[in-house]
Amino acid sequence: MANLPFPIKEVQFVADEVLNLNGHYKKLGIHEEIDTETFVTIVEEASKFLHEHAGPLNRNADEQGCHHTKDTVTTPDGFKKLYKDYCEAGWASLDGDPEYGGQGLSYWLQLILGELNTFYCPGWSNYPGLTHGVRELLEKFGSDEQKTMFLPELTTGEWSGTMCLTEPHCGTDLGLVNTSAKPSEDGSYQITGTKIFITSGEHDLCDNIIHLVLARLPEAPKGTKGISLFIVPKFLINEDHSLGNKNTLGAASIEHKMGLNGSATCVMNFDDAKGFLIGEANQGLRLMFTMMNGARLNTGIQGLAATQASYLSALEYANERLQMRAATGPLYPDKAADPIIVHPDVRRMLLTQKSFAEGNRAMAYFVGQQIEVIKHSQDAATVEKAETLLAFLTPIIKAFLTEVALEATNYGIQIFGGHGYIREHGQEQWARDAKIFTLYEGTTGIQALDLVGRKLIQTQKGQIGPMADIIQEFIDNSSSTLAKQLQAYLNLWKETTDMIAQSATKDPNNIGAASVDYLMMSGYVILAFFQAQLHNAAKEGKGQLGVDFYQGKIKSAEFYFAKILPRCHSLQAVIASGAAPLMDMQPAEF
Amino acid sequence: MANLPFPIKEVQFVADEVLNLNGHYKKLGIHEEIDTETFVTIVEEASKFLHEHAGPLNRNADEQGCHHTKDTVTTPDGFKKLYKDYCEAGWASLDGDPEYGGQGLSYWLQLILGELNTFYCPGWSNYPGLTHGVRELLEKFGSDEQKTMFLPELTTGEWSGTMCLTEPHCGTDLGLVNTSAKPSEDGSYQITGTKIFITSGEHDLCDNIIHLVLARLPEAPKGTKGISLFIVPKFLINEDHSLGNKNTLGAASIEHKMGLNGSATCVMNFDDAKGFLIGEANQGLRLMFTMMNGARLNTGIQGLAATQASYLSALEYANERLQMRAATGPLYPDKAADPIIVHPDVRRMLLTQKSFAEGNRAMAYFVGQQIEVIKHSQDAATVEKAETLLAFLTPIIKAFLTEVALEATNYGIQIFGGHGYIREHGQEQWARDAKIFTLYEGTTGIQALDLVGRKLIQTQKGQIGPMADIIQEFIDNSSSTLAKQLQAYLNLWKETTDMIAQSATKDPNNIGAASVDYLMMSGYVILAFFQAQLHNAAKEGKGQLGVDFYQGKIKSAEFYFAKILPRCHSLQAVIASGAAPLMDMQPAEF
Repeated sequence: MANLPFPIKEVQFVADEVLNLNGHYKKLGIHEEIDTETFVTIVEEASKFLHEHAGPLNRNADEQGCHHTKDTVTTPDGFKKLYKDYCEAGWASLDGDPEYGGQGLSYWLQLILGELNTFYCPGWSNYPGLTHGVRELLEKFGSDEQKTMFLPELTTGEWSGTMCLTEPHCGTDLGLVNTSAKPSEDGSYQITGTKIFITSGEHDLCDNIIHLVLARLPEAPKGTKGISLFIVPKFLINEDHSLGNKNTLGAASIEHKMGLNGSATCVMNFDDAKGFLIGEANQGLRLMFTMMNGARLNTGIQGLAATQASYLSALEYANERLQMRAATGPLYPDKAADPIIVHPDVRRMLLTQKSFAEGNRAMAYFVGQQIEVIKHSQDAATVEKAETLLAFLTPIIKAFLTEVALEATNYGIQIFGGHGYIREHGQEQWARDAKIFTLYEGTTGIQALDLVGRKLIQTQKGQIGPMADIIQEFIDNSSSTLAKQLQAYLNLWKETTDMIAQSATKDPNNIGAASVDYLMMSGYVILAFFQAQLHNAAKEGKGQLGVDFYQGKIKSAEFYFAKILPRCHSLQAVIASGAAPLMDMQPAEF
Repeated sequence: MANLPFPIKEVQFVADEVLNLNGHYKKLGIHEEIDTETFVTIVEEASKFLHEHAGPLNRNADEQGCHHTKDTVTTPDGFKKLYKDYCEAGWASLDGDPEYGGQGLSYWLQLILGELNTFYCPGWSNYPGLTHGVRELLEKFGSDEQKTMFLPELTTGEWSGTMCLTEPHCGTDLGLVNTSAKPSEDGSYQITGTKIFITSGEHDLCDNIIHLVLARLPEAPKGTKGISLFIVPKFLINEDHSLGNKNTLGAASIEHKMGLNGSATCVMNFDDAKGFLIGEANQGLRLMFTMMNGARLNTGIQGLAATQASYLSALEYANERLQMRAATGPLYPDKAADPIIVHPDVRRMLLTQKSFAEGNRAMAYFVGQQIEVIKHSQDAATVEKAETLLAFLTPIIKAFLTEVALEATNYGIQIFGGHGYIREHGQEQWARDAKIFTLYEGTTGIQALDLVGRKLIQTQKGQIGPMADIIQEFIDNSSSTLAKQLQAYLNLWKETTDMIAQSATKDPNNIGAASVDYLMMSGYVILAFFQAQLHNAAKEGKGQLGVDFYQGKIKSAEFYFAKILPRCHSLQAVIASGAAPLMDMQPAEF
């Protein structure tokens, strides 16, 4: 399995020539220290570190997996050293608050760090990723005392973090949570219950693990309105930050999974474990879901990273593997056969991967920019618009980027032929690892319900909102050959949106019936918008990345419009057929 | 992981009420002993045997896999006893020639036996499956001496068989084969070379393994015209059929794969191994490919079996798992939540699986009938038509049934949510096992080239041929509500066919560029035809299978037409964009 280097040029192109990094930060009045050159240099350094330290562990991490012992969970060989080196080199604290030992660099860079972690070693990526999420939640909602207690070590990575939501009988339906929290006399709580699917719930990478746990106080209202959020550390912490007693919690077992074997997925038992309430009682779900946008964006980016990695490996193989001759006659007559990249269908698969990765990267970074705007802009209207965009785009980023990652990684296998099915080549691992991205942090179906039911119908009253305006503005100001085609698809998307909004008033099942198809259509149209932007940017290319690079971008966009975007027509037809074909079937008729 | 029983009713419905089993055999004047009742009873018995003996081994076979030792390859626990019991119960010899100890039952039953083997335990299914293929090839092309020597034990299963085609540098491109065959003085040959991806190449299930090996004689023409086919047994055989010396061949290693771990996939070394020429020199590929129709049909049926199994397991889960409430309000107010089958998107996924399984079964059995017609019909025109149908439908059966199996098994995981990713539930195993079906016996891309390049353009001069006539005849004689819709899709398919035929004359790359999309479109339209037949048959249902069963079939067909078939529109648009978006990209621009 090749440990290929991440293509830094891709980041540079999007940040500098498409999303105007310098202007973005200047307008927000933040990160004056980060110009494009610095930004790219930091990404280069991160990539270099991970290429050297994480990439070589990836194949073994899958084979070896994690192992549950009486006292802990052991991670694959090399992860412990990697974690230590990663923290010492400062990658864990990249965008951390300087007050707690962080480097105060940008959120966008942190997003790209997540992309790189997954690109080099998906099984490793969630250890730093989840810790970052826990840290962010505490920065936002922790009391001063809690911040002082937990944030320094969570920022440096000396301690790691988890989020404990799911229970055996409830995943999506968190209203059913029944882990309990009893108040103690000292103001803390005793947490009792079983949580499952807890990523990094137990491991051997660092000294302490800080769990964020959803639980129910005595007499709390039923359902989602009676859930509170608690900090429950593996080891209790003394005032001088040294570790105190072991808390009464632990991993009962770990899951054996399809993939992502380097990541420890634990069943956690809490047995009167000492915990501390975050924020107010019964507000736990709200706090947790405030952080969900970031977590879902990160998952989408994991899909992007898998797509990119599978593509580069498949491209290398397609250039080397000799098999059959080009349809127009031998192109490499001195070789035993032509490399398989001459065959149209191999190109179709490669270009699908390539165009997904390129367009989705621009989409993901654009969403990352919205989060930065929300965090830092002083202008209320600007923040509001960014919040609306973020709310609308988050389920799309989460579900669309991961669903197409499945398609892309599947093509990775297919391009390798039978060799793709063999583990040592690494392609099948990408497909197995990527599958979890469509499941955790809310399945594709749940994202789609969030998009259509909550965002489109409830919040936006059936209107696409600012995303459509941005696309329209782009079209109006573009003389690109693709802009006219984009207009037709924007119109189709709007018509389909109207159709759903109207049908939803007649039968609420029309929302769920249309949801996934509508989410995918939205993704294809938005991706087309970003591809059209890449196309424009490449035509006006600064030249810094070389002629081939820009030509590749132009042709990739044209491929996408010709070969992928027409999927919207079928999606529209399917949505138009409504809920009846789904709901008519009686239980006994299945 | 549930070991669910195979739904016999599905076979009964298709055989009796759709494909007119009794009339089919009567017309051919064969198998007078097999009426529908006998047919169904045999399927029931096979299913009962495999449910008891193979199903319980499936999960462990995946975990344990096969292991290579110095002398042999060990198969998972229980396979050895299963193989012995399977042969003793007569399943190995079901359709074998009575002259060699077979039971002379029908080919169609043998196809269903393959379906059942995969349904209960995919990792097991290829041991009997390949042996059957080798036996068929020798029945057709072996000399009398070879038949006497090898067929009795291949028929009873005392010996098993393999097909050795692929080498490290050539899979698709068999013209590059360089395994050599040197003539010996006794009329045999010395075979030397390395073959890879050899299914059941070595194992511990029976006493001898009969390899069919493609190799090149001295001075043979280059390319595909210089390849010959040899029988190379693991143990040489004495005249009394006792085993003689061990031949100079063996497994160098086995592959570690994404799935199908119970099936031993071997690297085989032949080192001056003694072999016997089958048929004439340099005719090896022709002989091998004559058998390929059957092998590809069997692979398609493996996809069908995976689809069916994943569906039944997901359906069970969807009825049991309680999560959230129906959009129209609680349907099971006494439960903590409604079962997830109330949600439209869960139904969308279940019905996709269900409609694929039902329609594809009818399609596969129809193709099986054509093989029986070719074997047994006395009417030359009838045989010719069946041969044309078989040639056209084989790549579709192989690629379409397996590609939609990937989609279906992926939905199986998705319906289980996070639990789908956990190995013990079995859904992720279906997705991993099913992936190989799109690769072996020729990838989807290769099937598509066969369909468009060879069958459609070369053989049928750009016409769909008898399949379109059969569909048209059905439409003309049907008052079904679905027939009118089917007409529109048949027209679309014909128009797209014309478009490809015309564009192929301008640029041969247009064939490859359109190939996979055209194959999928063909599959969707043909499946629609079979769904429309099921719909008609269910409306006129004999009643023997119960009202719910027929209602389920009717609604399933309506679902398919509303929610799946519209995919043809996008495929048509994509095909229309031609080869340029694929071929314009220069190597350095990828």
